[in-house]
Amino acid sequence: MDGQVAAGTRIEKVMANVRQRIASRSLVPGARLPSVRALAKTMQVSTSTVVEAYDRLVADGTISSRPGSGFFVSGPLAPLSLADIEPQLDRAVDPLWVSRQALDDGSVLAKPGCGWLPASWMPQEALRRAMRGLARADAALLTDYGNPMGLLPLRQLLSRRLAEHGVQAGASQIMLTDSGTQAIDLLCRFLLQPGDTVVVDDPCYFNFHALLRAHRVKIVGVPYTPTGPDLALFEQVLKDHQPRLYITNSAIHNPTGARLSAVSAHRLLMLAEQAGLTIIEDDIFADFETQAAPRLAAFDGLNRVVQIGSFSKTLSASVRCGFIAAPMAWVEALTDLKIATTFGGTHFSAALILSLLTDGSYRKHVEALRQRLAATMPEVAGRLRSVGCVPWIEPQAGMFLWCRLPDGVDAADVARRALSRQVVLAPGNVFSSSQNASGFMRFNVSQMAGPQVMTVLAEALQQTPESCRL
Amino acid sequence: MDGQVAAGTRIEKVMANVRQRIASRSLVPGARLPSVRALAKTMQVSTSTVVEAYDRLVADGTISSRPGSGFFVSGPLAPLSLADIEPQLDRAVDPLWVSRQALDDGSVLAKPGCGWLPASWMPQEALRRAMRGLARADAALLTDYGNPMGLLPLRQLLSRRLAEHGVQAGASQIMLTDSGTQAIDLLCRFLLQPGDTVVVDDPCYFNFHALLRAHRVKIVGVPYTPTGPDLALFEQVLKDHQPRLYITNSAIHNPTGARLSAVSAHRLLMLAEQAGLTIIEDDIFADFETQAAPRLAAFDGLNRVVQIGSFSKTLSASVRCGFIAAPMAWVEALTDLKIATTFGGTHFSAALILSLLTDGSYRKHVEALRQRLAATMPEVAGRLRSVGCVPWIEPQAGMFLWCRLPDGVDAADVARRALSRQVVLAPGNVFSSSQNASGFMRFNVSQMAGPQVMTVLAEALQQTPESCRL
Repeated sequence: MDGQVAAGTRIEKVMANVRQRIASRSLVPGARLPSVRALAKTMQVSTSTVVEAYDRLVADGTISSRPGSGFFVSGPLAPLSLADIEPQLDRAVDPLWVSRQALDDGSVLAKPGCGWLPASWMPQEALRRAMRGLARADAALLTDYGNPMGLLPLRQLLSRRLAEHGVQAGASQIMLTDSGTQAIDLLCRFLLQPGDTVVVDDPCYFNFHALLRAHRVKIVGVPYTPTGPDLALFEQVLKDHQPRLYITNSAIHNPTGARLSAVSAHRLLMLAEQAGLTIIEDDIFADFETQAAPRLAAFDGLNRVVQIGSFSKTLSASVRCGFIAAPMAWVEALTDLKIATTFGGTHFSAALILSLLTDGSYRKHVEALRQRLAATMPEVAGRLRSVGCVPWIEPQAGMFLWCRLPDGVDAADVARRALSRQVVLAPGNVFSSSQNASGFMRFNVSQMAGPQVMTVLAEALQQTPESCRL
Repeated sequence: MDGQVAAGTRIEKVMANVRQRIASRSLVPGARLPSVRALAKTMQVSTSTVVEAYDRLVADGTISSRPGSGFFVSGPLAPLSLADIEPQLDRAVDPLWVSRQALDDGSVLAKPGCGWLPASWMPQEALRRAMRGLARADAALLTDYGNPMGLLPLRQLLSRRLAEHGVQAGASQIMLTDSGTQAIDLLCRFLLQPGDTVVVDDPCYFNFHALLRAHRVKIVGVPYTPTGPDLALFEQVLKDHQPRLYITNSAIHNPTGARLSAVSAHRLLMLAEQAGLTIIEDDIFADFETQAAPRLAAFDGLNRVVQIGSFSKTLSASVRCGFIAAPMAWVEALTDLKIATTFGGTHFSAALILSLLTDGSYRKHVEALRQRLAATMPEVAGRLRSVGCVPWIEPQAGMFLWCRLPDGVDAADVARRALSRQVVLAPGNVFSSSQNASGFMRFNVSQMAGPQVMTVLAEALQQTPESCRL
């Protein structure tokens, strides 16, 4: 073992030496490298060490080998683009702006505007164990395209899990996708034509806006109440716009944390039936629930409601896997569409998730998450109130607090000021199709640890004369 | 056999009748269909024929069944069914048919029709080692959404690898995607509108047809020669159809194994320049090359050519990760589109692939693959010749042999017969927009080990009187 480590270090030393000579231009692009024997002698290492070092440098493209004539410095490389320096566009109320800021992997202080939990809240050990387990899997699982519907045992397990929420979907009605977002995208492709009208909640998850824009459809918002969409206005929208589709989260609504009531669910489905409306129910926050909310897909029996989900929020956003539970009549055509647009399955990610779901670690993990969020939520709500941000409701579960800012404060201004101090916030209007949420902000309570975040927020909330002019 | 064929025809007749009545609006969405008994009487077929026809129409979403009350015309949905856009009564020459058969994870004897290598040819040990390594990675890598452009070190490495093929693309011009197919799909979304015209090679990779159908565009094929597309006809198509886009594989052409010549590349790009045509160069077989072919993206400098690739064919199709090397001006908008439609990055898969590319194992593996394919190709070609299948050209590299079948033999018939004996073949017309390749078949030489495959093929090639009537 020690010998192996030392050999590894020697190989790295040789690699570093070559890289340094390239960086200092003592070896220019196209130049021939010293022979293996010569460099081994110079650096007092074995020839096998140099061979391995050169192999790795070939593999990462630093150098290339020409059989019979040796190794050469790769080049010429493309010039560094100015875009590599990342110009910060001011798109403070653009749905994609918050996504960009939140997804940026540069070092920021905090991301209360993002829609996921910190890495430290995720089941790292279970993930590592599952990966080690998968390293022993069948060759076919490691290398082949999977079945286009997705790994059957995971679909069977999802079928049982959905049944716990009252959603009756056989494994043959469940299709795995690369992510929850991709699931919605696939359904939109299946259901929509450019120019169609789609109803969303106002406010709703901001990426619904971005996604629907990509489908070139008209978006109409219906105000969301603490128990679901405003049904009188919903009915009016159905009459006025003949929408084709409604996209919503019913269990824990994003961004408000509201919970659909049974009576709203029932009335909504009756309206949908009359109007021939299809509904996508994005149930991505299902496992955060402490009390089961009604599911549109459960009431409707997957007739005109299709449900999607994923484990990005509770397990890993890096291991991509989502799913669709669809009316049976759609499955064949959806499968064709999935093959046409992504070809393979999600074999590897699906196997990883299956392993975590079946070894018991997932259940314990989500229980711990729910408790941690239940403890964090009132604590953060108190801190937010102390700086004048008042939660619209007290959500029963989840990670989001939808807060009204102090009178006259514009959330986009606050977000811009906070970003200049490395804090990413989610201003209300990115969630709002009517753009009437400029006095609101969505806070992710799991992303607000430490005193500095609240300090930055408190100061960003203070309108200075300069910021008024923004 | 005769009885079955006749039954199949009767079922299709009933289905066509129902479809025709829906198309002519004599049956409107929501309308109740005639009872099974009534339609059987009208059409003078058995009730079981009508039951089967209705079942199939339910399966494809044309009609739906409400238990106890009969069958109804689906609606008011008109979901995007790829099958409806270009109705193919015969699935055997449908591009999606071959995909379905090949991707099906049921146990078949062999899949000479599929487009990938057997699991046993893939670098299993390296994959397992990389996975064990990844089990020790940072928590953020294991759990967070990645940067939407994708893992920077992998993009930097891809930049250097592309430079070896003469394609100058900085890391900021390279975006990771969930797969090569998803890369093309994203570009099609970016570049195309419904109704646009797209040029493909005839023959071309069959999933291009399926993918383009999903984008509701018009497909025009240009015959492919051993050195590239027929340029006179290409020029004519540009004049007659004003296509927006051309999609091709230039390095090792799928299905023919042909190799674009430098003069064809140059002339093609001049024609593209004159016509304002954009080109997607799918370079997914790049690492199989033994002699470097000209790349359109290299000649053009990523101006009007965008290149895509992935490691599905050489590393693992289960670990999903592809990439796009795009003109710089497109990058911002493509990133927005990627966020909107898939949200996160490909963090985990990208890290796994990066690890395999940098530890030296990838280079050794692909060298071994090239040698193995170089040995297998002439051997399989000889066996194919012995049953009357003659390679159109002798490809310099890759896994495909595009063969002309004996005179008068229909490839779709052969594929159907072989499938009944658990051998999946790829009949020529699934690759052909003009449907003039019924006398051709694409064989994957890596998937033809063992004597049984050739026996099944040889027997399937023998036309029996029954099969002539198919």
